[in-house]
Amino acid sequence: MFEHTLELRVRYVETDAMGIVWHGNYFSYFEVARTESLRNTGLPSYRELEDSGILMPIVEVGATFHAPARYDDLLSIHVHVDNPPRARIRFDYTITRGDTLIVEGFTVLAFMDAATRRPCRPPKAFQTFFA
Amino acid sequence: MFEHTLELRVRYVETDAMGIVWHGNYFSYFEVARTESLRNTGLPSYRELEDSGILMPIVEVGATFHAPARYDDLLSIHVHVDNPPRARIRFDYTITRGDTLIVEGFTVLAFMDAATRRPCRPPKAFQTFFA
Amino acid sequence: MFEHTLELRVRYVETDAMGIVWHGNYFSYFEVARTESLRNTGLPSYRELEDSGILMPIVEVGATFHAPARYDDLLSIHVHVDNPPRARIRFDYTITRGDTLIVEGFTVLAFMDAATRRPCRPPKAFQTFFA
Amino acid sequence: MFEHTLELRVRYVETDAMGIVWHGNYFSYFEVARTESLRNTGLPSYRELEDSGILMPIVEVGATFHAPARYDDLLSIHVHVDNPPRARIRFDYTITRGDTLIVEGFTVLAFMDAATRRPCRPPKAFQTFFA
Repeated sequence: MFEHTLELRVRYVETDAMGIVWHGNYFSYFEVARTESLRNTGLPSYRELEDSGILMPIVEVGATFHAPARYDDLLSIHVHVDNPPRARIRFDYTITRGDTLIVEGFTVLAFMDAATRRPCRPPKAFQTFFA
Repeated sequence: MFEHTLELRVRYVETDAMGIVWHGNYFSYFEVARTESLRNTGLPSYRELEDSGILMPIVEVGATFHAPARYDDLLSIHVHVDNPPRARIRFDYTITRGDTLIVEGFTVLAFMDAATRRPCRPPKAFQTFFA
Repeated sequence: MFEHTLELRVRYVETDAMGIVWHGNYFSYFEVARTESLRNTGLPSYRELEDSGILMPIVEVGATFHAPARYDDLLSIHVHVDNPPRARIRFDYTITRGDTLIVEGFTVLAFMDAATRRPCRPPKAFQTFFA
Repeated sequence: MFEHTLELRVRYVETDAMGIVWHGNYFSYFEVARTESLRNTGLPSYRELEDSGILMPIVEVGATFHAPARYDDLLSIHVHVDNPPRARIRFDYTITRGDTLIVEGFTVLAFMDAATRRPCRPPKAFQTFFA
């Protein structure tokens, strides 16, 4: 299993009139955590993947909201990958503020050839890393 | 069953560097469709609910992405409620562009007393309307 | 002088914890008004411009905020172009809610060749239209 | 003069179909830089200000865009305040990527009593700090 934890502070723009983080913004937190977790592994970054002709579109997401987060909260985003990627890779996330569980969620990404726009195998480095 | 369909055009700000609508933004399309579908029924609007002391926080969401939408696309957001609300209400959505299926998703909202921040029953008008 | 007015309703996602529209979101309202005003003239849409190899990056913006707008407010976005475009084109905007002035602002866009990434002349249709 | 510099990495959600940071998002970078610069001074944070009954609505903004920033770029946001606050306070910003100037901008905020929604004096700590 691969896992990584990132700290991230809630921005004002991410809140809504209910005074809490707007629910769709958690998917950008997931995205940042995913990107940063790849950065720390020596795997190609998402930007390098794109430059090499591989896109990773999101194909499925889900989230359960346990407690609200507010402006300026310092959140921990824990991301883990439990299974090696095939045509798809699934990331699971848990967001906490101290001992409080805020959000649980997941995103499933596909590997796609940028030229043909068709599914493709993950790069070798991914297959090895998550094996 | 309650259902409603809304047309909505993709804004530039909603796209990302992949040239498509950023996945989290579909949740704002869901939100607009939900709001507008309530507006057309004579039920209290979300704003009126808030003014009357009831919040409806999102407690669970999910989405499956079938095809990308792009800037200036005209999308149809179909929203339906299949079951009467209890402490929670679930909305399901299907987004299409012409004959192309773009996204399927759902959101579950809770009824919450704004003062006590505890779950509460849906207003009578909701119970009657969705019965 | 060219002018156009658009009605637009504030979405929940566009508000912030102060209970009002987050200031940067007015630039997306400006963008929608600009796009729609071009649509109604028979000029190429921004999407068609891009497809024909011309980008229009934003080079300067400004806004003054007179009164806040809130969730579900119905706003009028009035856009006008007072001078014919050269290498740049300036759009001015006034946002109102009924008789209340909400925001005044402007955006300056450049015409840019997508291939060379250098400034270029506006398409003939623009020169004629705004003359 | 007060000044502070912050490093910040461009998120995917902040880009648009032109492949660059959507222009309105720079105002959220300004906001983060402003917040963090206050944090480092011992002045009340914006959240603490709100809790003490003072809001600081944005009353004017402006920006000039010199070069585009892209996904995953590491940007430096330099913020400075050149004059002591009165009913208003102006922050100026310069965003760079290495030696490349990306954006220059400013925001003017008012001090407002949350209860009366009228302009008020800045808290003593602000008057002293920026004197």
